[in-house]
Amino acid sequence: MPKQVDHEERRAAIVSALWKLAGERGLDRVSLRDTARGAGMSLGQLQHYFGTREDMLVFAMDFISQKVTERVTERVMALEERTPHQILRMCVAEMLPLDDRKRQGSRINISFYVEALDNERLLAHSQEGARKLLDFFEQQLSAARERREIPADRDPRREGMIMMSVIDGLTSYYHLGLHTAEEALEMAMRHLDTLFGAPGAAHETKR
Amino acid sequence: MPKQVDHEERRAAIVSALWKLAGERGLDRVSLRDTARGAGMSLGQLQHYFGTREDMLVFAMDFISQKVTERVTERVMALEERTPHQILRMCVAEMLPLDDRKRQGSRINISFYVEALDNERLLAHSQEGARKLLDFFEQQLSAARERREIPADRDPRREGMIMMSVIDGLTSYYHLGLHTAEEALEMAMRHLDTLFGAPGAAHETKR
Repeated sequence: MPKQVDHEERRAAIVSALWKLAGERGLDRVSLRDTARGAGMSLGQLQHYFGTREDMLVFAMDFISQKVTERVTERVMALEERTPHQILRMCVAEMLPLDDRKRQGSRINISFYVEALDNERLLAHSQEGARKLLDFFEQQLSAARERREIPADRDPRREGMIMMSVIDGLTSYYHLGLHTAEEALEMAMRHLDTLFGAPGAAHETKR
Repeated sequence: MPKQVDHEERRAAIVSALWKLAGERGLDRVSLRDTARGAGMSLGQLQHYFGTREDMLVFAMDFISQKVTERVTERVMALEERTPHQILRMCVAEMLPLDDRKRQGSRINISFYVEALDNERLLAHSQEGARKLLDFFEQQLSAARERREIPADRDPRREGMIMMSVIDGLTSYYHLGLHTAEEALEMAMRHLDTLFGAPGAAHETKR
């Protein structure tokens, strides 16, 4: 199905152009027309795929989060020891702005977030994405609690939300220049490891 | 000195107009001209106080954070028991979007933050504000550690940054609709109380 492949390639080219422009000048200053130009096509051609800027943003959010999920899944599969603790350590490292691509990604995520606050459809979409991530964290922390690796009195959903907040906050303050990305990583890991090392967790238990 | 008072009142009126407009349409869509109109003065009159939009934003940031500091200081002074734990609990409650004014305030803070990412002067200013807040948290947590109310192996600066991140993250996810402000408060308090109740801290110690 060569035609199918072509369409997917074009969509990917559009997202890539959008990503580049958003990184340069901020998402709010990127129009459909600019993106078409950046992707080497006419506005009409781009509108064959995305009728509105909103359609394009929703697709881009999904596309990028799918890529991140794929990358994280791949790295989880490559872990020697797939315990909740190791999986969460890996996710934390992937989510922090430790290289240029992730730095740009987190800047664009901030822009997405701000646009979503004033747009119901983007808001619903962002909310769904955040909820999925929270479900994932909760699931890992529930498994950890069952394995008695975190204390029984820690609520997995609450600790998941705290963990997501820690990652986001450390990323925001990184962009503000309060610490390096490596320092952010160290702090996030200490937070996670403290939860796993907290008394009430049976340290050596491995089933 | 009636003239002096008048100037201060005018500046306050300008900030109040800016605040109102920023809450309605987002800070990025508020110009000097709009703000002058909102404050019931001409653009020329406003420019007597603030030559540029950037000057106005810097002043507004300082003005608002000064008001917050005054309110928090007042409430700290009113506490019956001024322990680090009680002071921090009070700060957490003040920083979360628990009423309409604070909700609007946190929305405007998010806008400030985003503008600062692309503006060196605003960035330096935001950074300084965040650093002062971090110093304050560190100071309270150091005092708590000296009183043996938090474990000796917890670094006060790191825990302060984690606490600020938790508050910011919970606020962001509140605006995204993941939880209510009351749920955010409950999670933040549990996080703080867990630190204070953590084994290694001498629970009953009060000097």
